[in-house]
Amino acid sequence: MTSSTDATVATSETGDPLLLTPGPLTTSRTVKAAMVHDWGSRDANFVEINRSALARLAEIANGAGDWVTVPMQGSGTFAVEAMLTSFVPADGTALVLINGAYGKRAKRILEIARRETLVYETAEDTPPDLGEVEAILARTPSITHVFAVHCETTTGILNPIAQLGALAAKYGKSYLVDSMSAFGALPLDVRSMHIDAVAASSNKCIEGVPGLGFVICRREALERTKGNATTLVLDLHDQCANLEKTSQYRFTPPTHVIVAFHQALEEFVAEGGVAGRGARYRNNCRILIEGMRALGFRPLLPDALQAPIIVTFHMPTDPRFVFQRFYDSLKQRGFVIYPGKLTVAESFRIGCIGRIGEPELRAALAAIRAVLDEMGVTGLSAQTA
Amino acid sequence: MTSSTDATVATSETGDPLLLTPGPLTTSRTVKAAMVHDWGSRDANFVEINRSALARLAEIANGAGDWVTVPMQGSGTFAVEAMLTSFVPADGTALVLINGAYGKRAKRILEIARRETLVYETAEDTPPDLGEVEAILARTPSITHVFAVHCETTTGILNPIAQLGALAAKYGKSYLVDSMSAFGALPLDVRSMHIDAVAASSNKCIEGVPGLGFVICRREALERTKGNATTLVLDLHDQCANLEKTSQYRFTPPTHVIVAFHQALEEFVAEGGVAGRGARYRNNCRILIEGMRALGFRPLLPDALQAPIIVTFHMPTDPRFVFQRFYDSLKQRGFVIYPGKLTVAESFRIGCIGRIGEPELRAALAAIRAVLDEMGVTGLSAQTA
Ligand SMILES: Cc1ncc(COP(=O)(O)O)c(C=O)c1O
Ligand SMILES: Cc1ncc(COP(=O)(O)O)c(C=O)c1O
Repeated sequence: MTSSTDATVATSETGDPLLLTPGPLTTSRTVKAAMVHDWGSRDANFVEINRSALARLAEIANGAGDWVTVPMQGSGTFAVEAMLTSFVPADGTALVLINGAYGKRAKRILEIARRETLVYETAEDTPPDLGEVEAILARTPSITHVFAVHCETTTGILNPIAQLGALAAKYGKSYLVDSMSAFGALPLDVRSMHIDAVAASSNKCIEGVPGLGFVICRREALERTKGNATTLVLDLHDQCANLEKTSQYRFTPPTHVIVAFHQALEEFVAEGGVAGRGARYRNNCRILIEGMRALGFRPLLPDALQAPIIVTFHMPTDPRFVFQRFYDSLKQRGFVIYPGKLTVAESFRIGCIGRIGEPELRAALAAIRAVLDEMGVTGLSAQTA
Repeated sequence: MTSSTDATVATSETGDPLLLTPGPLTTSRTVKAAMVHDWGSRDANFVEINRSALARLAEIANGAGDWVTVPMQGSGTFAVEAMLTSFVPADGTALVLINGAYGKRAKRILEIARRETLVYETAEDTPPDLGEVEAILARTPSITHVFAVHCETTTGILNPIAQLGALAAKYGKSYLVDSMSAFGALPLDVRSMHIDAVAASSNKCIEGVPGLGFVICRREALERTKGNATTLVLDLHDQCANLEKTSQYRFTPPTHVIVAFHQALEEFVAEGGVAGRGARYRNNCRILIEGMRALGFRPLLPDALQAPIIVTFHMPTDPRFVFQRFYDSLKQRGFVIYPGKLTVAESFRIGCIGRIGEPELRAALAAIRAVLDEMGVTGLSAQTA
């Protein structure tokens, strides 16, 4: 997917730096080219493009029939806030499972909405303990909803969403999931996982451009949310009811973003759906971690907890390793990496998602080696181990 | 701007039907082409593109220095709801001036947010009576905010926003304006009009693509809104504070939409800003109304109340005039018009905005004449007068 022949200066199909980040990320040329047209939002072709994209999203989550995809203009957080404020009623109580920034953000959203919130927090490198979650559910009947993050992008940790769903079901709680960074790359079965609503967005593993969030909702559960929402625009019930009644969005949809998203979904299916996309990302992740380990970098997470989405590396302690210089030199070579967001350790992150594959990751590793040489950093493994 | 040579089958520069609607509308090829790249949201070039676009918006409204543009992911309504829920505090009272759907929507937003709301409503073809507004302000000291719609797109009526601003200032009220469909085409001076906040979006008269709203806020007034918001994502104070502190959006920005918007602003400036763009739209509007009158159609509004944005026409009463057929035949010929939204009369609308000029409007009029002939509608003027 690289159009450059020089292994140390890479670009995407459209000549842009490769985005090794959690999104916006590198998309295909054809996804972006789909935006070089204008569509009326009432246009029958646009209406069909939108309908089929939304239907496909529910299918990807094995929700066809009983689940409906409700789109939400804006970024992924708009979809998460729409989900939480539409599903958790004024007299509900949400148990929020936190092991990173996105769990914390959900807590903040619920607090602003004045929803009763209980928190079970573990360290950023630690998934929730299922026994403790069960104990909380058993002793707290006031809990109505359980919220979890699928891949907590803060570290790249994979949370046990299936097991958490089983617990939510066992105790009769409504289960809400933020699968922003995992949707499309990791298996997600709303039926067997007992999920009432799951939020994600256009610009992560489906490889569209940013501008649309969505929430896949169990229809029966969504119907009971009428009147819960604390705003007009983030009201999922109203958004869904209007879309189903009129085929129109209540408020202007980001037509170009949606047409690009539809194209991205076509390419997703052509790649073999979750299995195909997930396999490419797992391969990306394996090459990245092996290559970085060989260069002496140390990933934060053990392999068993690592989702193939984004990898957090400890910051080397070698004083010659200056992160800003590392970042800038990689950028000059055509690779954009991501700063860390950890509270527990100095770190940086490299993403495995987007329109990138083995050649791009090998080129990135070559560039990283070259930058280390340039900085005079040698024998990193001794330093970081 | 038409790439077709056949006067009765028009297309845009990219071969799409011409959108004679209030948005999404026809944009230039170069605006759309700006989206065929991927940008990291932390990329220095993207950060600068975003910064300069936002700065330019405040300049267009003569607000440079004391006003700041706060972007809001999503559609225009997201910006309006962000403005109302951020500016009107829990103990505030808003006077909402209504003469169409967008005034009504503001009322609904305030009611959902449980803000005390007073309404002064006039008919859809009638601007607010300034004497009555003054009387309300004089006798209702509890009012803290006045909300008005600049061009009420329901009909295309121009509301007296300068005079309303003078009244708001006289009585010490904070003045909030929805200038969605007028911003960039009609003069708007936040200083002389005493505007604390004005909302608009990327895909109207600036001729960008949909996906970003914005609110131009008087800095001092915005600073006092801290803690007012009822949501995380629509909190203008938080959005602004974070953007100024970090140059980053709190949540993923629609990078492609923003880069296109920046390009649209360059083209806006090249056309001569509000003066140039407004002149083209006024010419579009004049040609449209003259041409439609000559065909026997009757505009809803007298010329003095008509903004050069969108024109509402009475539905002809001739039984041979079937609107759906009229709409579909025009669409086949490359022109997308807009259904009516009036409660007072059967109507339809034709927009004057977007990347269209005299040749496109003449072609549209020729197509309308041909469709009338096709339907066997003759002597319309006698029927609709
Ligand atoms: C798990 C998770 N949740 C929520 C978000 C927020 O998405 P956005 O930045 O599009 O608002 C992200 C973004 O990376 C994420 O990874
Ligand atoms: C005056 C006015 N306000 C608000 C809106 C809502 O904008 P959006 O559809 O982008 O949410 C519109 C849209 O046409 C408008 O004309």
